[in-house]
Amino acid sequence: MASKPSIPKGTRDFSPAEVAKRQYIIQTIKSNFEKFGFQPIETPSFENSETLMGKYGEEGDRLIFKILNSGDYLAKANAAHLDTKDSTKLTSSISEKALRYDLTVPFARYVVQHQNEIEFPFKRYQIQPVWRADRPQKGRFREFFQCDADVVGSKSLWQEIELVQLYDTVFTQLGLNGVNIKINNRKILSGIAEVIGASDKLIDFTVALDKLDKIGEDGVKDEMIAKGITEDAITKVQPLFNFTGSISEKIEKLELLLISSDEGLKGVEELRFICENVSKLGLATANLDLDVTLARGLNYYTGAIFEVSAPEGVAMGSIGGGGRYDDLTGIFGLKNMSGVGISFGLDRIYLVVEELNLFPETVTAASKALFINYGDGEAFYAMQAIKQLRAAGIKVELYPENVKVAKQFQHADKRNIPFAVIVGETEIASNSYSLKNLVTGEQILVDLESLKAALL
Amino acid sequence: MASKPSIPKGTRDFSPAEVAKRQYIIQTIKSNFEKFGFQPIETPSFENSETLMGKYGEEGDRLIFKILNSGDYLAKANAAHLDTKDSTKLTSSISEKALRYDLTVPFARYVVQHQNEIEFPFKRYQIQPVWRADRPQKGRFREFFQCDADVVGSKSLWQEIELVQLYDTVFTQLGLNGVNIKINNRKILSGIAEVIGASDKLIDFTVALDKLDKIGEDGVKDEMIAKGITEDAITKVQPLFNFTGSISEKIEKLELLLISSDEGLKGVEELRFICENVSKLGLATANLDLDVTLARGLNYYTGAIFEVSAPEGVAMGSIGGGGRYDDLTGIFGLKNMSGVGISFGLDRIYLVVEELNLFPETVTAASKALFINYGDGEAFYAMQAIKQLRAAGIKVELYPENVKVAKQFQHADKRNIPFAVIVGETEIASNSYSLKNLVTGEQILVDLESLKAALL
Repeated sequence: MASKPSIPKGTRDFSPAEVAKRQYIIQTIKSNFEKFGFQPIETPSFENSETLMGKYGEEGDRLIFKILNSGDYLAKANAAHLDTKDSTKLTSSISEKALRYDLTVPFARYVVQHQNEIEFPFKRYQIQPVWRADRPQKGRFREFFQCDADVVGSKSLWQEIELVQLYDTVFTQLGLNGVNIKINNRKILSGIAEVIGASDKLIDFTVALDKLDKIGEDGVKDEMIAKGITEDAITKVQPLFNFTGSISEKIEKLELLLISSDEGLKGVEELRFICENVSKLGLATANLDLDVTLARGLNYYTGAIFEVSAPEGVAMGSIGGGGRYDDLTGIFGLKNMSGVGISFGLDRIYLVVEELNLFPETVTAASKALFINYGDGEAFYAMQAIKQLRAAGIKVELYPENVKVAKQFQHADKRNIPFAVIVGETEIASNSYSLKNLVTGEQILVDLESLKAALL
Repeated sequence: MASKPSIPKGTRDFSPAEVAKRQYIIQTIKSNFEKFGFQPIETPSFENSETLMGKYGEEGDRLIFKILNSGDYLAKANAAHLDTKDSTKLTSSISEKALRYDLTVPFARYVVQHQNEIEFPFKRYQIQPVWRADRPQKGRFREFFQCDADVVGSKSLWQEIELVQLYDTVFTQLGLNGVNIKINNRKILSGIAEVIGASDKLIDFTVALDKLDKIGEDGVKDEMIAKGITEDAITKVQPLFNFTGSISEKIEKLELLLISSDEGLKGVEELRFICENVSKLGLATANLDLDVTLARGLNYYTGAIFEVSAPEGVAMGSIGGGGRYDDLTGIFGLKNMSGVGISFGLDRIYLVVEELNLFPETVTAASKALFINYGDGEAFYAMQAIKQLRAAGIKVELYPENVKVAKQFQHADKRNIPFAVIVGETEIASNSYSLKNLVTGEQILVDLESLKAALL
C-alpha cells in the first residue's frame, strides 16, 4: 500500500484531546442519568435484519448498513434476484444482519425479549454508537453516538417532569446555561387538526405557523391558504397568531381554542400538569416554553413532545429531543407498553461547548508531569518516584529514552504536559527532585512528599 | 413479527447489573492506563476493506465482517465472479468497508495517517469493541471489547518494565492478587531455534516442551523426535528440561545455553534488564516468571512477549498478553516504528472476578432509595426532596404511579434498591421523611439533612 491510508467517508478518528472532551460530556450525561434512577443497558452493534428492517420507513431501510453473510453467501442467494440484478431484493438473501440504526428499536427489542426478567416500570439509559448510510455533511456522520434515557411501563406524567429536570441539570452542569426546552403535546396538535378540520394538513399548518417571526401574520396566512387550509379554519385558530405570554397564559389560550376537542383538552390537561409542577419545583438555568409548532416525531409520539435548543445566540439546531410514545414495543408483539424518553445530541453539544469555550481546563488526556531521562541509573531513580506518584493517582511518565534534554522538554511542551521533573546526579545525591513548571519556567528542588503535593 | 425477537448468535445484550460490572473493570483499566501516561484514541467501527484485508492471514480475511455497499451494489459487481458465483472473489466488488477485527491494525493505520500531528513516542490506549465471524463458543463472542495500551516510536526497554507494572497495578486493584505474568523474548526463541538447528520446528519444539509437567521429560522428547527434531538437538538444549529456579537463575542458564547465538544473547540481555528492574522496583501482588515455551505472536513480535494467567486455582486461559513488534506501521508504508503493547481480556477478567466474588458491593446500577408514591400531592413533596438529594449526587427516584404500596415496595426489592422513603400526610405535616432500610426493616423519621446524610 503506497498511498497514505484513510478512513471511510462520514467516519472519524478521535485524537486524545477529542476523546477527553467527548468523555467529559458523556460522563456528565451518564452520571445524571444514574442520579435520576436510569440504569444502563447495552445491545449488540448489529441486530438480525428482520429486527430493524421496516421500522424506519423506506428511507430508513435504505440507510441501514447491511452486513454480508460470511462464507459462501452466493450459495444461498436468490437466483431470480441475482439474474435480474435486483440489488434491493437480493439483499435479504445474502445479508442477515445489519448495524444498529438508532437505540430505540433495539431497546424495544430488548424489552420484549427480556420482559420476564425486567421489573417494570423500567428506566434505562443507553449510550452507544449508531450507523447510518446518510450522505455525510457538516455535523452529520455515518457513525455517531446516541445518548438516550427512556422509561417504559408507566403512563405517569411525573416522568415528563423529571425528564425536563434532567435536561436542565445536565446542561447546567455543562455550563450551557439558558438552553430552551420547548414542549408540546401530540394531543394538542390533534386538537388543532380537528379545529382546522384537516388532519392531513397538520404539518403544513405547523410549518407555516413556525415562520411567524420571519414572514409575519399575513405571510403565514398566505402560505396556509396556498397549502389548501381554508380561511374559515384560519379564523378559528386566530389566537395562535398572537400566542405570547407565560406558559400558563398560553395554556389558558389553548384551552379556549380547543374547547370543542376532547383530545385537545386532554393534551391541555397533561401540559398543565407538567408545566405547573416543573415551574413549582424550579429549573436551575433552562427555560421551558410551550411551542405549538413543535411537531417532531408526529408518527410515533402520542403525548408530550420535547426539543432543546442551544442558548440564545448560538446558531445550532436542536441539541436534544424526545417525547412519549404509547406503543413502543407493539412492533415486537408486546402491547400496552407506554414509554417516554429523551435523547442528547452528543456531536452538537460538543460543538456548542467548544464554541462557547466551556470545556474545563482539567479536561485533558495529558499527563501531569514528564520525568526527564538522563540514563538508566537516573531512570531507575525516577521510576521509584513515578511508582509512588501513580499509586497516589497522579498521571506521570518517564521519557523512555536518554536523548538530548532539549528534545525531551520539547516533547512535554508539544503534549501540553504542564510539569517536568529533573533527576540528575545532584538530585539523586540529595534524595530530591527538581520540579519545573513548564508554563512559568519556575524550578524548585523538592522531596518526594512535596513533589506529590505539588502534582496532586 | 409473531415470535419473540432475538439477537444474532455470538452477540450479547448486557443488563444493568452486567453493564455496571463491566464498567467497573473497564474503568479500573482505563484509569491506570491514564496514570501510566497512555492517552485514549478512538477509531471508526468500520474501516476501508483494503486497510484490514490481508493483515490477519487467510483465516482472518474470512472472519472479517464485510459491509454491503449501499444502494444498487450489483451495478458495480464484477460480472465474471457473479456468473461463476464465486463469493470470495465477488466480495471486493460489492463491499468496500469492513468491521474492525482488532485494535492493532486500526492503530497502525491511525499512526500513519496522523503521523504529522502525533508527537512521538506516542503512548495510546484504546478500549473499543471488535467483531469476528468466529464460531461462537463458551467465552468466545462475535462482538467483544479489546483494551489495548501501546507505545510506538521508542525502543526503550523501560516500556516493557512499565507494562509489567501496569498489569500488576490493574490486577491488584481488581483484587486479583497473584496473577502470573509470563515473559519471554522472541530473540531467545530464535536463539533456541538456532541451537536446535531447525527454525521451522520452533513451534513444535515449544508446544512439546510446554507439556513437560503433564507428560514428563521422556514424553516430551518422544514428541520432539516424532516431530523430526534430532536427538542431537535435544541434547543441546537439555538444560531446558530442568528449567527451574528464580528468574535470574533461569537467565543464567539461558545465557550459557545460547552462548553461540548472537541473537539469543541479545534476547537474554533484554530479558535481564527488564526482569532486574521490575524486581528492584517491586510488584504489588503479581508474579513475574520467565517461560521459554511462551511463543504467542511469533509472526509479529520481535522482542519481549507477555502473557498473563489468572491466579493459581482459577481455570481460565490467558487474561492478557502482548509484546514488542519492531515494524507495526510498515504495512502502511511507515518504516522503523518500533512498538510495544499489552492487552487486557475483558470477558475473561469478568468471569474470573465473578468466580472469585471480587466485585465490590458498591458496583451496582441500582438507585439508593425509592420514594413511595401516595398521590400527586405527596409526590410533589417527594420530588422537592429528590431534587436536593440528586444535587448532592445521590441516586434516588420516585415510583412513578400511585399504586398499592406493597407493589411499590416489591419494586424496590426486585431492583435491589436498599432504601425506601415514605412520605404521607404525617411526614408532610412534620416536614420530615420516613426512611426505611429494606434489608433490616428498620424505619426512622428524619429531616431532609439527616435523610441526605443517611443516603450519601
